[in-house]
Amino acid sequence: MLLFDLAGADERLRWSPFCWRIKLALAHKRITCETVPWHYHQKELLGSSGDGAVPVLVDGDRYVTDSWHIAEYLEETYPHGERLFNEPAPHPGALFVKHWVEAEVHRPLRHLTMLDMLRKLEPRDQPYFRRTREQMFGQSLEDFCANRALHIERLRQSLEPARRLLQSQPYLSGAQPAFADHLLLGSLLWGLVACGEDFLAASDTVAQWRNKLLRQYEVVLP
Amino acid sequence: MLLFDLAGADERLRWSPFCWRIKLALAHKRITCETVPWHYHQKELLGSSGDGAVPVLVDGDRYVTDSWHIAEYLEETYPHGERLFNEPAPHPGALFVKHWVEAEVHRPLRHLTMLDMLRKLEPRDQPYFRRTREQMFGQSLEDFCANRALHIERLRQSLEPARRLLQSQPYLSGAQPAFADHLLLGSLLWGLVACGEDFLAASDTVAQWRNKLLRQYEVVLP
Repeated sequence: MLLFDLAGADERLRWSPFCWRIKLALAHKRITCETVPWHYHQKELLGSSGDGAVPVLVDGDRYVTDSWHIAEYLEETYPHGERLFNEPAPHPGALFVKHWVEAEVHRPLRHLTMLDMLRKLEPRDQPYFRRTREQMFGQSLEDFCANRALHIERLRQSLEPARRLLQSQPYLSGAQPAFADHLLLGSLLWGLVACGEDFLAASDTVAQWRNKLLRQYEVVLP
Repeated sequence: MLLFDLAGADERLRWSPFCWRIKLALAHKRITCETVPWHYHQKELLGSSGDGAVPVLVDGDRYVTDSWHIAEYLEETYPHGERLFNEPAPHPGALFVKHWVEAEVHRPLRHLTMLDMLRKLEPRDQPYFRRTREQMFGQSLEDFCANRALHIERLRQSLEPARRLLQSQPYLSGAQPAFADHLLLGSLLWGLVACGEDFLAASDTVAQWRNKLLRQYEVVLP
Protein backbone atom coordinates (compact mmCIF):
# COMPACT_ATOMS: atom_id res chain seq x y z
CA MET A 1 0.00 0.00 0.00
CA LEU A 2 1.28 3.45 -0.99
CA LEU A 3 0.16 6.95 -0.08
CA PHE A 4 1.20 9.92 -2.21
CA ASP A 5 1.97 12.65 0.32
CA LEU A 6 2.68 16.31 -0.50
CA ALA A 7 6.33 17.20 0.24
CA GLY A 8 8.47 20.32 0.38
CA ALA A 9 11.92 20.67 -1.19
CA ASP A 10 13.15 19.05 2.01
CA GLU A 11 11.15 15.87 1.60
CA ARG A 12 10.86 15.38 5.36
CA LEU A 13 8.48 18.36 5.31
CA ARG A 14 4.98 16.92 4.88
CA TRP A 15 2.32 19.44 5.83
CA SER A 16 -0.84 18.62 3.86
CA PRO A 17 -3.78 18.39 6.33
CA PHE A 18 -5.62 16.12 3.91
CA CYS A 19 -2.66 13.70 3.83
CA TRP A 20 -2.13 13.93 7.60
CA ARG A 21 -5.68 12.83 8.38
CA ILE A 22 -5.07 9.67 6.34
CA LYS A 23 -1.63 8.98 7.86
CA LEU A 24 -3.27 9.31 11.31
CA ALA A 25 -6.13 7.01 10.27
CA LEU A 26 -3.60 4.43 9.04
CA ALA A 27 -1.65 4.67 12.32
CA HIS A 28 -4.94 4.34 14.23
CA LYS A 29 -5.87 1.16 12.35
CA ARG A 30 -2.23 -0.07 12.50
CA ILE A 31 -2.07 -0.46 8.73
CA THR A 32 1.43 -0.35 7.28
CA CYS A 33 1.65 1.96 4.31
CA GLU A 34 4.60 3.51 2.52
CA THR A 35 4.28 7.27 2.09
CA VAL A 36 5.73 8.56 -1.17
CA PRO A 37 6.86 12.20 -1.24
CA TRP A 38 4.93 13.99 -3.98
CA HIS A 39 5.41 17.40 -5.62
CA TYR A 40 2.85 19.53 -7.47
CA HIS A 41 4.62 18.95 -10.81
CA GLN A 42 4.14 15.18 -10.52
CA LYS A 43 0.44 15.04 -11.29
CA GLU A 44 1.02 12.21 -13.79
CA LEU A 45 2.05 9.89 -10.91
CA LEU A 46 -1.48 10.03 -9.51
CA GLY A 47 -3.07 8.13 -12.36
CA SER A 48 -6.23 9.14 -14.15
CA SER A 49 -8.53 9.09 -11.13
CA GLY A 50 -8.98 12.13 -8.94
CA ASP A 51 -8.28 15.70 -9.88
CA GLY A 52 -4.50 15.67 -9.57
CA ALA A 53 -4.63 16.26 -5.83
CA VAL A 54 -3.22 14.27 -2.93
CA PRO A 55 -3.78 12.21 -0.88
CA VAL A 56 -4.06 9.29 -3.29
CA LEU A 57 -3.95 5.83 -1.73
CA VAL A 58 -2.75 2.99 -3.95
CA ASP A 59 -3.96 -0.36 -2.63
CA GLY A 60 -2.89 -3.12 -5.04
CA ASP A 61 -4.29 -1.92 -8.35
CA ARG A 62 -6.85 0.46 -6.84
CA TYR A 63 -6.29 4.21 -6.73
CA VAL A 64 -8.46 5.80 -4.05
CA THR A 65 -8.76 9.61 -3.99
CA ASP A 66 -10.29 12.24 -1.67
CA SER A 67 -9.43 11.99 2.01
CA TRP A 68 -13.00 11.40 3.18
CA HIS A 69 -13.48 8.58 0.67
CA ILE A 70 -10.10 7.10 1.58
CA ALA A 71 -11.15 6.95 5.25
CA GLU A 72 -14.43 5.26 4.31
CA TYR A 73 -12.52 2.88 2.01
CA LEU A 74 -10.10 1.93 4.81
CA GLU A 75 -12.97 1.34 7.25
CA GLU A 76 -14.87 -0.88 4.81
CA THR A 77 -11.89 -2.76 3.41
CA TYR A 78 -10.08 -3.25 6.72
CA PRO A 79 -12.90 -3.59 9.26
CA HIS A 80 -10.67 -5.36 11.79
CA GLY A 81 -8.76 -3.36 14.35
CA GLU A 82 -9.67 0.08 15.60
CA ARG A 83 -12.67 1.79 14.06
CA LEU A 84 -12.58 5.21 12.38
CA PHE A 85 -16.31 5.92 12.74
CA ASN A 86 -18.70 5.37 15.66
CA GLU A 87 -21.89 6.07 13.72
CA PRO A 88 -23.50 4.40 10.71
CA ALA A 89 -22.74 5.96 7.28
CA PRO A 90 -22.82 8.79 6.31
CA HIS A 91 -21.12 9.38 9.71
CA PRO A 92 -22.83 12.76 10.19
CA GLY A 93 -20.97 13.64 13.40
CA ALA A 94 -17.52 13.15 11.87
CA LEU A 95 -18.66 14.76 8.62
CA PHE A 96 -19.75 17.85 10.54
CA VAL A 97 -16.30 18.02 12.14
CA LYS A 98 -14.73 17.76 8.67
CA HIS A 99 -16.80 20.70 7.39
CA TRP A 100 -16.15 22.70 10.56
CA VAL A 101 -12.38 22.12 10.28
CA GLU A 102 -12.33 23.04 6.60
CA ALA A 103 -14.60 26.08 6.92
CA GLU A 104 -13.46 27.55 10.25
CA VAL A 105 -10.03 26.23 11.25
CA HIS A 106 -8.53 26.32 7.75
CA ARG A 107 -9.47 30.00 7.27
CA PRO A 108 -6.86 31.40 9.72
CA LEU A 109 -4.43 28.56 8.92
CA ARG A 110 -4.35 29.57 5.26
CA HIS A 111 -3.32 33.10 6.26
CA LEU A 112 -0.62 31.67 8.53
CA THR A 113 0.88 29.03 6.24
CA MET A 114 0.79 30.22 2.60
CA LEU A 115 4.10 32.12 2.51
CA ASP A 116 5.95 29.48 4.53
CA MET A 117 4.73 26.77 2.18
CA LEU A 118 5.71 28.81 -0.86
CA ARG A 119 9.26 29.25 0.43
CA LYS A 120 9.63 25.60 1.40
CA LEU A 121 8.36 24.06 -1.86
CA GLU A 122 10.67 22.81 -4.58
CA PRO A 123 11.65 25.84 -6.72
CA ARG A 124 9.86 24.41 -9.77
CA ASP A 125 6.58 24.13 -7.78
CA GLN A 126 6.69 27.73 -6.55
CA PRO A 127 5.35 29.65 -9.59
CA TYR A 128 2.40 27.23 -9.90
CA PHE A 129 1.66 27.52 -6.18
CA ARG A 130 1.85 31.31 -6.12
CA ARG A 131 -0.26 31.74 -9.27
CA THR A 132 -3.08 29.38 -8.25
CA ARG A 133 -3.26 30.67 -4.65
CA GLU A 134 -3.14 34.35 -5.57
CA GLN A 135 -5.95 33.73 -8.05
CA MET A 136 -7.95 31.94 -5.34
CA PHE A 137 -7.47 34.71 -2.72
CA GLY A 138 -7.53 37.67 -5.09
CA GLN A 139 -4.40 39.23 -3.60
CA SER A 140 -0.64 38.69 -3.31
CA LEU A 141 0.43 36.02 -0.84
CA GLU A 142 2.43 38.70 0.99
CA ASP A 143 -0.75 40.75 1.57
CA PHE A 144 -2.78 37.62 2.34
CA CYS A 145 -0.31 36.61 5.06
CA ALA A 146 0.05 40.02 6.70
CA ASN A 147 -1.13 40.60 10.28
CA ARG A 148 0.07 37.28 11.62
CA ALA A 149 -0.87 38.02 15.24
CA LEU A 150 -4.51 38.53 14.25
CA HIS A 151 -4.65 35.18 12.46
CA ILE A 152 -3.03 33.36 15.40
CA GLU A 153 -5.74 34.86 17.61
CA ARG A 154 -8.43 33.80 15.14
CA LEU A 155 -7.01 30.28 14.92
CA ARG A 156 -7.15 29.95 18.71
CA GLN A 157 -10.68 31.31 18.74
CA SER A 158 -11.78 28.98 15.94
CA LEU A 159 -10.87 26.00 18.14
CA GLU A 160 -13.37 26.96 20.85
CA PRO A 161 -15.98 24.26 20.03
CA ALA A 162 -13.28 21.55 20.29
CA ARG A 163 -11.91 23.14 23.47
CA ARG A 164 -15.35 22.99 25.10
CA LEU A 165 -15.97 19.40 24.01
CA LEU A 166 -12.58 18.31 25.39
CA GLN A 167 -13.61 19.63 28.82
CA SER A 168 -16.04 16.73 29.15
CA GLN A 169 -14.39 13.88 27.20
CA PRO A 170 -10.79 12.92 26.32
CA TYR A 171 -11.23 12.85 22.52
CA LEU A 172 -13.50 14.57 20.02
CA SER A 173 -14.85 11.09 19.16
CA GLY A 174 -15.60 10.20 22.81
CA ALA A 175 -13.65 7.88 25.10
CA GLN A 176 -11.35 6.76 22.27
CA PRO A 177 -9.93 8.71 19.33
CA ALA A 178 -11.33 8.18 15.84
CA PHE A 179 -11.49 9.97 12.50
CA ALA A 180 -13.05 13.18 13.91
CA ASP A 181 -9.84 13.54 15.96
CA HIS A 182 -7.67 12.83 12.91
CA LEU A 183 -9.45 15.57 10.98
CA LEU A 184 -8.63 18.32 13.45
CA LEU A 185 -5.21 16.96 14.38
CA GLY A 186 -4.22 16.78 10.70
CA SER A 187 -5.01 20.46 10.31
CA LEU A 188 -3.02 21.46 13.38
CA LEU A 189 -0.09 19.46 11.97
CA TRP A 190 -0.36 21.54 8.80
CA GLY A 191 0.46 24.66 10.79
CA LEU A 192 3.14 22.99 12.90
CA VAL A 193 5.04 21.47 9.97
CA ALA A 194 4.63 24.28 7.43
CA CYS A 195 5.56 27.08 9.85
CA GLY A 196 7.70 25.21 12.40
CA GLU A 197 5.83 27.18 15.04
CA ASP A 198 3.28 26.21 17.68
CA PHE A 199 0.35 28.61 17.47
CA LEU A 200 -1.35 27.23 20.60
CA ALA A 201 -0.62 28.06 24.22
CA ALA A 202 0.86 25.10 26.10
CA SER A 203 -1.97 25.41 28.65
CA ASP A 204 -4.64 25.09 25.92
CA THR A 205 -6.74 21.92 26.31
CA VAL A 206 -6.52 21.52 22.53
CA ALA A 207 -2.69 21.57 22.63
CA GLN A 208 -2.73 18.94 25.37
CA TRP A 209 -5.12 16.71 23.41
CA ARG A 210 -2.88 17.16 20.32
CA ASN A 211 0.30 16.26 22.16
CA LYS A 212 -1.27 13.20 23.75
CA LEU A 213 -2.40 11.92 20.33
CA LEU A 214 1.00 12.59 18.75
CA ARG A 215 2.56 10.39 21.44
CA GLN A 216 -0.09 7.68 21.03
CA TYR A 217 0.42 7.50 17.27
CA GLU A 218 4.19 7.90 17.63
CA VAL A 219 4.25 10.82 15.21
CA VAL A 220 7.76 12.20 14.82
CA LEU A 221 7.88 15.73 13.42
CA PRO A 222 10.89 17.00 11.44
CA MET B 1 -45.34 17.33 32.00
CA LEU B 2 -44.50 21.04 32.12
CA LEU B 3 -41.73 23.09 30.56
CA PHE B 4 -40.87 26.53 31.93
CA ASP B 5 -40.21 28.63 28.84
CA LEU B 6 -38.77 32.15 28.82
CA ALA B 7 -41.39 34.68 27.66
CA GLY B 8 -41.51 38.34 26.71
CA ALA B 9 -44.11 40.84 27.94
CA ASP B 10 -46.23 39.50 25.07
CA GLU B 11 -46.24 35.92 26.28
CA ARG B 12 -46.51 34.56 22.76
CA LEU B 13 -42.89 35.71 22.32
CA ARG B 14 -40.70 32.73 23.30
CA TRP B 15 -37.16 33.14 22.01
CA SER B 16 -34.83 31.18 24.32
CA PRO B 17 -32.65 28.89 22.13
CA PHE B 18 -32.18 26.56 25.10
CA CYS B 19 -35.95 26.21 25.51
CA TRP B 20 -36.52 25.88 21.76
CA ARG B 21 -34.18 22.88 21.46
CA ILE B 22 -36.28 21.09 24.08
CA LYS B 23 -39.62 22.08 22.52
CA LEU B 24 -38.30 20.72 19.21
CA ALA B 25 -37.06 17.51 20.89
CA LEU B 26 -40.51 17.05 22.48
CA ALA B 27 -42.22 17.58 19.10
CA HIS B 28 -39.76 15.12 17.53
CA LYS B 29 -40.59 12.45 20.11
CA ARG B 30 -44.32 13.38 19.98
CA ILE B 31 -44.42 13.96 23.71
CA THR B 32 -47.21 16.25 24.88
CA CYS B 33 -45.96 18.90 27.26
CA GLU B 34 -47.48 22.13 28.48
CA THR B 35 -45.15 25.11 28.11
CA VAL B 36 -45.47 27.65 30.93
CA PRO B 37 -44.45 31.24 30.13
CA TRP B 38 -41.70 32.24 32.55
CA HIS B 39 -40.15 35.62 33.37
CA TYR B 40 -36.76 36.38 34.91
CA HIS B 41 -38.35 37.58 38.17
CA GLN B 42 -39.99 34.19 38.70
CA LYS B 43 -36.92 32.23 39.75
CA GLU B 44 -38.78 30.78 42.75
CA LEU B 45 -41.07 28.83 40.37
CA LEU B 46 -38.13 26.73 39.20
CA GLY B 47 -37.65 24.92 42.50
CA SER B 48 -34.35 24.44 44.25
CA SER B 49 -32.61 22.52 41.46
CA GLY B 50 -30.71 24.26 38.70
CA ASP B 51 -29.32 27.76 38.81
CA GLY B 52 -32.53 29.70 38.26
CA ALA B 53 -32.33 29.31 34.48
CA VAL B 54 -34.77 27.84 32.00
CA PRO B 55 -35.54 25.41 30.48
CA VAL B 56 -36.73 23.41 33.47
CA LEU B 57 -38.78 20.32 32.69
CA VAL B 58 -41.19 19.14 35.37
CA ASP B 59 -42.08 15.47 34.89
CA GLY B 60 -44.30 14.31 37.76
CA ASP B 61 -42.29 15.23 40.83
CA ARG B 62 -38.94 15.47 39.00
CA TYR B 63 -37.40 18.81 38.05
CA VAL B 64 -34.87 18.36 35.24
CA THR B 65 -32.57 21.28 34.40
CA ASP B 66 -30.01 22.10 31.68
CA SER B 67 -31.10 21.57 28.08
CA TRP B 68 -28.49 18.89 27.31
CA HIS B 69 -29.46 16.89 30.39
CA ILE B 70 -33.15 17.32 29.61
CA ALA B 71 -32.57 15.84 26.13
CA GLU B 72 -30.68 12.88 27.62
CA TYR B 73 -33.42 12.48 30.25
CA LEU B 74 -36.14 12.42 27.56
CA GLU B 75 -34.21 9.86 25.49
CA GLU B 76 -33.65 7.54 28.49
CA THR B 77 -37.09 7.93 30.05
CA TYR B 78 -39.08 7.80 26.81
CA PRO B 79 -37.05 5.45 24.58
CA HIS B 80 -40.03 4.67 22.36
CA GLY B 81 -40.71 6.77 19.31
CA GLU B 82 -38.19 8.83 17.41
CA ARG B 83 -34.66 8.92 18.76
CA LEU B 84 -32.77 12.11 19.64
CA PHE B 85 -29.29 10.59 19.39
CA ASN B 86 -27.76 8.22 16.82
CA GLU B 87 -24.59 7.47 18.77
CA PRO B 88 -23.96 5.92 22.16
CA ALA B 89 -23.51 8.32 25.12
CA PRO B 90 -21.85 10.78 25.46
CA HIS B 91 -23.17 11.45 21.92
CA PRO B 92 -19.95 13.18 20.83
CA GLY B 93 -21.24 14.20 17.39
CA ALA B 94 -24.31 15.99 18.77
CA LEU B 95 -22.27 17.39 21.67
CA PHE B 96 -19.81 18.89 19.20
CA VAL B 97 -22.72 20.56 17.37
CA LYS B 98 -23.95 21.95 20.72
CA HIS B 99 -20.55 23.49 21.46
CA TRP B 100 -20.21 24.79 17.91
CA VAL B 101 -23.67 26.41 18.05
CA GLU B 102 -22.99 27.99 21.44
CA ALA B 103 -19.45 29.17 20.63
CA GLU B 104 -19.82 30.25 16.99
CA VAL B 105 -23.48 30.82 16.08
CA HIS B 106 -24.47 32.47 19.37
CA ARG B 107 -21.68 35.04 19.11
CA PRO B 108 -23.25 37.06 16.25
CA LEU B 109 -26.76 36.25 17.48
CA ARG B 110 -26.07 37.90 20.83
CA HIS B 111 -25.09 41.12 19.03
CA LEU B 112 -28.27 40.92 16.95
CA THR B 113 -30.81 40.08 19.65
CA MET B 114 -29.87 41.77 22.93
CA LEU B 115 -31.61 45.13 22.40
CA ASP B 116 -34.70 43.55 20.88
CA MET B 117 -35.00 41.19 23.83
CA LEU B 118 -34.54 44.05 26.30
CA ARG B 119 -37.36 46.03 24.70
CA LYS B 120 -39.71 43.05 24.52
CA LEU B 121 -39.27 41.83 28.10
CA GLU B 122 -41.71 42.63 30.89
CA PRO B 123 -40.78 46.08 32.24
CA ARG B 124 -39.85 44.62 35.64
CA ASP B 125 -37.37 42.20 33.99
CA GLN B 126 -35.60 44.91 31.99
CA PRO B 127 -33.25 46.42 34.64
CA TYR B 128 -32.05 42.91 35.65
CA PHE B 129 -31.50 41.93 32.01
CA ARG B 130 -29.62 45.12 31.13
CA ARG B 131 -27.42 45.01 34.24
CA THR B 132 -26.38 41.34 33.94
CA ARG B 133 -25.77 41.52 30.17
CA GLU B 134 -23.81 44.78 30.27
CA GLN B 135 -21.65 43.28 33.01
CA MET B 136 -21.09 40.17 30.88
CA PHE B 137 -20.19 42.11 27.70
CA GLY B 138 -18.36 44.99 29.38
CA GLN B 139 -20.26 47.64 27.38
CA SER B 140 -23.71 49.16 26.98
CA LEU B 141 -26.21 47.03 25.07
CA GLU B 142 -26.56 49.91 22.59
CA ASP B 143 -22.82 49.73 21.79
CA PHE B 144 -22.84 45.93 21.84
CA CYS B 145 -25.64 45.85 19.25
CA ALA B 146 -24.20 48.47 16.89
CA ASN B 147 -23.12 47.53 13.36
CA ARG B 148 -26.01 45.19 12.69
CA ALA B 149 -25.04 44.51 9.06
CA LEU B 150 -21.65 43.16 10.15
CA HIS B 151 -23.23 40.76 12.64
CA ILE B 152 -25.76 39.52 10.06
CA GLU B 153 -22.82 38.79 7.75
CA ARG B 154 -20.97 37.00 10.56
CA LEU B 155 -24.04 34.97 11.43
CA ARG B 156 -24.37 33.80 7.83
CA GLN B 157 -20.66 32.98 7.72
CA SER B 158 -20.81 31.09 11.03
CA LEU B 159 -23.34 28.70 9.47
CA GLU B 160 -20.90 27.54 6.77
CA PRO B 161 -20.11 24.11 8.34
CA ALA B 162 -23.85 23.31 8.48
CA ARG B 163 -24.36 24.66 4.96
CA ARG B 164 -21.66 22.33 3.62
CA LEU B 165 -23.01 19.32 5.49
CA LEU B 166 -26.53 19.95 4.16
CA GLN B 167 -25.17 19.73 0.60
CA SER B 168 -24.72 15.98 1.07
CA GLN B 169 -27.52 15.00 3.47
CA PRO B 170 -30.99 16.35 4.30
CA TYR B 171 -30.42 16.87 8.04
CA LEU B 172 -27.43 17.57 10.26
CA SER B 173 -28.12 14.21 11.93
CA GLY B 174 -28.22 12.30 8.62
CA ALA B 175 -31.24 10.97 6.76
CA GLN B 176 -33.58 11.92 9.61
CA PRO B 177 -33.54 14.90 11.96
CA ALA B 178 -32.43 14.45 15.57
CA PHE B 179 -31.11 16.55 18.44
CA ALA B 180 -28.17 18.00 16.48
CA ASP B 181 -30.78 19.59 14.20
CA HIS B 182 -32.82 20.85 17.17
CA LEU B 183 -29.71 22.53 18.59
CA LEU B 184 -29.06 24.68 15.53
CA LEU B 185 -32.73 25.22 14.69
CA GLY B 186 -33.41 26.39 18.26
CA SER B 187 -30.75 29.06 17.90
CA LEU B 188 -32.08 30.27 14.56
CA LEU B 189 -35.52 30.54 16.17
CA TRP B 190 -33.98 32.77 18.85
CA GLY B 191 -33.10 35.31 16.17
CA LEU B 192 -36.39 34.95 14.31
CA VAL B 193 -38.62 35.37 17.36
CA ALA B 194 -36.59 37.99 19.26
CA CYS B 195 -36.02 40.24 16.24
CA GLY B 196 -38.97 39.30 14.02
CA GLU B 197 -36.52 39.37 11.14
CA ASP B 198 -35.07 36.61 8.95
CA PHE B 199 -31.29 37.03 8.83
CA LEU B 200 -30.82 34.31 6.18
CA ALA B 201 -31.21 34.62 2.43
CA ALA B 202 -34.17 32.60 1.13
CA SER B 203 -31.79 30.77 -1.23
CA ASP B 204 -29.56 29.65 1.67
CA THR B 205 -29.53 25.85 2.12
CA VAL B 206 -29.70 26.46 5.87
CA ALA B 207 -32.88 28.55 5.51
CA GLN B 208 -34.44 25.79 3.39
CA TRP B 209 -33.52 23.12 5.95
CA ARG B 210 -34.95 25.36 8.71
CA ASN B 211 -38.23 25.96 6.91
CA LYS B 212 -38.66 22.26 6.12
CA LEU B 213 -38.19 21.35 9.81
CA LEU B 214 -40.58 24.08 10.98
CA ARG B 215 -43.24 22.55 8.73
CA GLN B 216 -42.45 19.01 9.88
CA TYR B 217 -42.74 19.95 13.55
CA GLU B 218 -45.72 22.23 12.87
CA VAL B 219 -44.04 25.16 14.59
CA VAL B 220 -46.21 28.27 14.42
CA LEU B 221 -44.32 31.50 15.03
CA PRO B 222 -46.05 34.59 16.49
